[in-house]
Amino acid sequence: MFVLGIDPGLTRCGYGAVVRQDGNLRAVAAGVLRTETALDVAVRLAELQDGIRSLLRELAPEVVAVERLFFQSNVRTAMSVGQASGVVLAEASAAGCTVVQYTPNEVKSAVTGSGGAGKEQVQRMVQAILGLATTPRPPDAADALALALTHHARAPLAARIGSAR
Amino acid sequence: MFVLGIDPGLTRCGYGAVVRQDGNLRAVAAGVLRTETALDVAVRLAELQDGIRSLLRELAPEVVAVERLFFQSNVRTAMSVGQASGVVLAEASAAGCTVVQYTPNEVKSAVTGSGGAGKEQVQRMVQAILGLATTPRPPDAADALALALTHHARAPLAARIGSAR
Repeated sequence: MFVLGIDPGLTRCGYGAVVRQDGNLRAVAAGVLRTETALDVAVRLAELQDGIRSLLRELAPEVVAVERLFFQSNVRTAMSVGQASGVVLAEASAAGCTVVQYTPNEVKSAVTGSGGAGKEQVQRMVQAILGLATTPRPPDAADALALALTHHARAPLAARIGSAR
Repeated sequence: MFVLGIDPGLTRCGYGAVVRQDGNLRAVAAGVLRTETALDVAVRLAELQDGIRSLLRELAPEVVAVERLFFQSNVRTAMSVGQASGVVLAEASAAGCTVVQYTPNEVKSAVTGSGGAGKEQVQRMVQAILGLATTPRPPDAADALALALTHHARAPLAARIGSAR
């Protein structure tokens, strides 16, 4: 199964792709899409849309795992994350991918075993699980890889529950 | 000048196009794009994206005027409006349109003269300004026409300020 994790954002949008081959999880891509804060928000969203579309065409993932929005105290940031999330979800669905969403707590819990884990703990676990020589950088890319790992961890269970019905 | 107003939303996304010809303002299109609440949010956003893209291709407006997001007490609604807004802004910019945003108060003020006007008052003024036989329905379409009218009202002043610099 080939899963692309996306941590949506307008200034930095993290992505990380993880494939399971012969029972092993392997990172095949990780990085960040950026847009210039000086540009108009509509132009930035169009650039993000273009970047996500290129990424989906290049990688052709089966599943796209996106961070689920939650209430944030910073309304301005929450709004731009919401707008970026809308663009990502629309593009992933339009590309024919299965789209799933996980909350930050679900990701922390799946990757470290604890929903209260810190960011650095998540990054070290992502590094360990994927057998990477260094911690994935920037943090947005690590968060995206963690989203992809979360789906790899949870999908088999969800499939078993589905088939038992 | 041909302006398409869009009041973003995932369940109902209002649109209304207003052209100025020989000094007269005329409505050339108004309606609502809907998506089924039972569908997955990513699928709904992809449908909205497809609908907005078709509308922009069909109407080919010079300017797209979108309602600017503001903080709402209902976080769940605010998030889906934010996601819909992201899709609309990205598509309008990608289509090469000038994209502008107005707050609800700016729209009320431009159309009725008062930032504290009620929804029905705005609808009656939209009807009167555009010389329509009836109040535009549903309300989302009327709101979108009001957004387009706001840009028609404000753009000449903004242009004069720009040229005086």
